[in-house]
Amino acid sequence: MPEINGERVLADLRALKALAPYESGVHRPTLSPEHVASLKWLETELRAIGHEAKIDGIANVFGISKVTGPKLLGGSHLESQNHAGWLDGPLGVVYALEAARAVKADPTFANCGVDVVACCDEEGHYGFFLGSRSAVGEVDDALIDGAVDRTSGIPMRDALAAAGLAGVPRHVIDPKRYVGFLEAHIEQGDWLEAHDLKIGVVTSIVGIRQYVITTEGVQNHAGTTRMAIRKDAGVAAARIAVAISDQFPALAGERTVWTMGRITLEPGAPAVIPGRAELVLQMRDADNAVLDRLEGKVREIVAEADKSGPCRAGIKQTRRTEPAAMAPHFMDAVRGAAEADVPGRHVDMPSGAGHDAMVFSRHMPSGMLFVPSIGGISHHWTENTSDADIVMGARVYIDAVARLLGA
Amino acid sequence: MPEINGERVLADLRALKALAPYESGVHRPTLSPEHVASLKWLETELRAIGHEAKIDGIANVFGISKVTGPKLLGGSHLESQNHAGWLDGPLGVVYALEAARAVKADPTFANCGVDVVACCDEEGHYGFFLGSRSAVGEVDDALIDGAVDRTSGIPMRDALAAAGLAGVPRHVIDPKRYVGFLEAHIEQGDWLEAHDLKIGVVTSIVGIRQYVITTEGVQNHAGTTRMAIRKDAGVAAARIAVAISDQFPALAGERTVWTMGRITLEPGAPAVIPGRAELVLQMRDADNAVLDRLEGKVREIVAEADKSGPCRAGIKQTRRTEPAAMAPHFMDAVRGAAEADVPGRHVDMPSGAGHDAMVFSRHMPSGMLFVPSIGGISHHWTENTSDADIVMGARVYIDAVARLLGA
Repeated sequence: MPEINGERVLADLRALKALAPYESGVHRPTLSPEHVASLKWLETELRAIGHEAKIDGIANVFGISKVTGPKLLGGSHLESQNHAGWLDGPLGVVYALEAARAVKADPTFANCGVDVVACCDEEGHYGFFLGSRSAVGEVDDALIDGAVDRTSGIPMRDALAAAGLAGVPRHVIDPKRYVGFLEAHIEQGDWLEAHDLKIGVVTSIVGIRQYVITTEGVQNHAGTTRMAIRKDAGVAAARIAVAISDQFPALAGERTVWTMGRITLEPGAPAVIPGRAELVLQMRDADNAVLDRLEGKVREIVAEADKSGPCRAGIKQTRRTEPAAMAPHFMDAVRGAAEADVPGRHVDMPSGAGHDAMVFSRHMPSGMLFVPSIGGISHHWTENTSDADIVMGARVYIDAVARLLGA
Repeated sequence: MPEINGERVLADLRALKALAPYESGVHRPTLSPEHVASLKWLETELRAIGHEAKIDGIANVFGISKVTGPKLLGGSHLESQNHAGWLDGPLGVVYALEAARAVKADPTFANCGVDVVACCDEEGHYGFFLGSRSAVGEVDDALIDGAVDRTSGIPMRDALAAAGLAGVPRHVIDPKRYVGFLEAHIEQGDWLEAHDLKIGVVTSIVGIRQYVITTEGVQNHAGTTRMAIRKDAGVAAARIAVAISDQFPALAGERTVWTMGRITLEPGAPAVIPGRAELVLQMRDADNAVLDRLEGKVREIVAEADKSGPCRAGIKQTRRTEPAAMAPHFMDAVRGAAEADVPGRHVDMPSGAGHDAMVFSRHMPSGMLFVPSIGGISHHWTENTSDADIVMGARVYIDAVARLLGA
């Protein structure tokens, strides 16, 4: 079996971190100078192992092997959320890079190859999986023309031009070239750690449904309007939020999550009774049947609030992403590798977060594996995974790659 | 008794409305060109009746009579909230202007006078009752230096200079000059209308207490964080809001009001579990004992939330205005006038909103009367009062003035 070099994996991850340090993590938003530096670092490393390497017109990095036998596509992303962790993204890229090196160095796999991809903007600074969607041909130029950085407001076209990528063509993969796509990632939750497990065999990436719940009352003076005649849209929204919190658990699955991350009152002044409120509800599960049950319940809660008054209440779905199933033979390969390396310490689990594998799974067999996140912390600079677990994960990854290439 | 001219009262109010029309109301923010035009209109009208008239350095208008006998100060304000009603303020100024004319025209009152004041910025575009507080000597120059328009951000000094008032001295009244201050205003609520009454005899202006309630949880990823380990500050804040709504009514007085006009979640993104939330609670009552009871209850609710978890919860008082009692003999004068003009159709009531009379009451005997607001609507351009009620209110006002001047 191809052998990975654990010290090199750690050194590569530390080198990437050193290009964009922030506290104990990194600050590497999409197309920032720090991000572009990381793309160039990867391009150099890929060339060093003899891959054809390029940064394409949407800042995806591709490393393409020159072998004629079975090839696997591996990778993840290099940019980070603002002021976030050093492993969210780079871990999967470095595992794929190391797997490419290991496969190349193993005479048994002389005819096989691992192509490497770093997909731009998985973290959504400019849009919604623009890099991986471009790589599979799902993005047209107009979408990029309209994309702006959610923090700075800078158009993606300007940022690409600043990175020297204006006019550079975008590379679209041929899914038939590959046995499939394999992505490693930190779990970003605490399930593995809490259960003393080492590898999550991803079964699916959860479906996401998002709703805006609106209450409409009557805006009025907070001093002169009697309580008896008030129609306070803020109180109505708070009651709906509490009803959701109280009634969802009985209908949810073991891993269902739901979040009300935004409540907006209008006009939002201390001395004005809110005339209108918005509550954003997002829920995630790998099983559409569970999401259907919860959707039924929230629609019932909102309809009851509307009926009982004093405010009107309505709900509108604003986002729906279907659950993305991982390929069973990819799951078998990851599970088999994990059982060999960390016997009994792996678990089949869905991914609660979206990943580029979700996009690739629409075009070719895809799989994912998770390594533990310390304390389940994610999207924060304190995000971390032990060195031992990072190296352990790389071994499981290359073992799974070897099984999938089947040399 | 001095006689008012109802048609002239309506014509004056319509003239002021015509200087700043917006839909069926007005848009006359403090120190806007429309507001300054209304000040000049008043100055002209005051000069026409022989008063010494001036617009002072904080854009207060004073009309000062030249008589040597008993004098009453009457008035209110001329600026409006943004896109608001035509009577909130001007009604009280025009009543005082008409009372000044009527007293002057009545030989029985030859030695008496009504001074008129239009206090700048009662509506709080730049601060907190800056005009009336300046008139009683409670405002120093530094306060004006720091004041900025809450909508435009323009410094008050710049706006005063644009109005031609840079360097103009501010006029401070001598409370001993007056028997007291009498202000008429629209009710801004629906109590009079709902009870088929015509005049509210204001007993006091309510005290206001305001609090910021804070919940602190743990911000985390909305997809990967299990429900069981979440500390969602948004849900915690919603539960506190519902508890306040449910538990306050049993402790409140008949006219107590409370409002949660602002809820802020941090970071406020659909896919992030809120790590921190703020809820602003404001409550008003004429009786400090009632406010003490409610304050005790909300502190208990917050302490219980903090104790039961999973989030920390705390509360901080951010504003406290004491209830301002109207002078008993002013209440007697208004009540007697109302009983004479609209027998049995008046009621003693507190004012739920703040008014300039609150400021004047700290320095001399003060009183207020309310006329009905159609539908209780206020701070909106649909605010209105019937012509008949406007004229009725002017009659009660002059009758009360006559009783207070006691010629």
